[in-house]
Amino acid sequence: MARPGILIVLSGPSGTGKGTICKELLQNYSNINYSISTTTRSPRAGEVNGVNYWFIAQEEFQSMVKNDELLEWAEVYGNYYGTPRRYVADLLDSGKDVVLEIDTQGAMQVKAKFPQGVFIYIVPPSIDELANRIYKRGSDSPEAIEKRLGCVRNELTCAYRYNYIVVNDQIAEATAKISAIINAEKCRVDRNTDLIDVMGK
Amino acid sequence: MARPGILIVLSGPSGTGKGTICKELLQNYSNINYSISTTTRSPRAGEVNGVNYWFIAQEEFQSMVKNDELLEWAEVYGNYYGTPRRYVADLLDSGKDVVLEIDTQGAMQVKAKFPQGVFIYIVPPSIDELANRIYKRGSDSPEAIEKRLGCVRNELTCAYRYNYIVVNDQIAEATAKISAIINAEKCRVDRNTDLIDVMGK
Repeated sequence: MARPGILIVLSGPSGTGKGTICKELLQNYSNINYSISTTTRSPRAGEVNGVNYWFIAQEEFQSMVKNDELLEWAEVYGNYYGTPRRYVADLLDSGKDVVLEIDTQGAMQVKAKFPQGVFIYIVPPSIDELANRIYKRGSDSPEAIEKRLGCVRNELTCAYRYNYIVVNDQIAEATAKISAIINAEKCRVDRNTDLIDVMGK
Repeated sequence: MARPGILIVLSGPSGTGKGTICKELLQNYSNINYSISTTTRSPRAGEVNGVNYWFIAQEEFQSMVKNDELLEWAEVYGNYYGTPRRYVADLLDSGKDVVLEIDTQGAMQVKAKFPQGVFIYIVPPSIDELANRIYKRGSDSPEAIEKRLGCVRNELTCAYRYNYIVVNDQIAEATAKISAIINAEKCRVDRNTDLIDVMGK
């Protein structure tokens, strides 16, 4: 029996390059799979069922919500989008890691249903630079700081509800950090209790 | 101001190659430092104060114990050995990572005083192979399993008190896993709250 894979949930303020990081992860780490969402919206030209989305009818979607078959879901402009629990579970059970790139609200829905997931918050390099400068000088006026950071403030406090924070300065570096996080998580004692139990009896 | 380093505590049953892993880490990862212990035993030929050990008098050692200046200590054959808190703290404060290779009792003393340390339990590959076989077959008699695993049983249940478990199959691979753990830990939200706080205000 393969060890179960890790569910990685990526969020972060817009413009942080989450999508590029996801693409990097999928290209360079063969064990990582992208979760395919399900939606009630119609396929666009060229979109394929089971590749871009699982396209389903609204009644079916509502039934999945009712039966707790979605790890998270949301309505956007009258269309519904969600992450099928069964699809993700099957990948994890087969030992594959799964990456979900979703917003904070979706991520917190997943966390409530699947707390053993790994929740990573991506921040842009400019925030890091800003933070570094504030760190080093400690001399900016509260107003100046407020003005600069205002627009990402609410978003960023969400980071507390994640396990990790990764600054996306260089894509390759950020991707390597996420890979390190996955490898480290696989060594966590609470993911290896079966190994210890078998040995300790 | 540099971000504080990570204190890594390595333990595991004897014969797991912890010493070799430590050497590998020190050679290949420039940011990692080895903690120099303090002891009341006399220097042996060639041993240098501040390199192999900090050699001190018994009264001084007792005073350090009394003043809580040791992260952990133990008596071995009438001699005392301990880890000076100040020395480790100075390295961490300067942004260096510090590795301690100590037994489970010492590790748990450190954990009580410095819970933000990263506690890694190393297990030998033979245990892994043994465990894998038991996993895959699930057919061994309880007596057969008992016989094989008896000698490492008590040791291994200690692993529950650590954060990570690393199987030392190939030294390079185990060392890479520990490096991944260090890199991942540096991204943990609870080690970056100052970053978020500065941004979120």
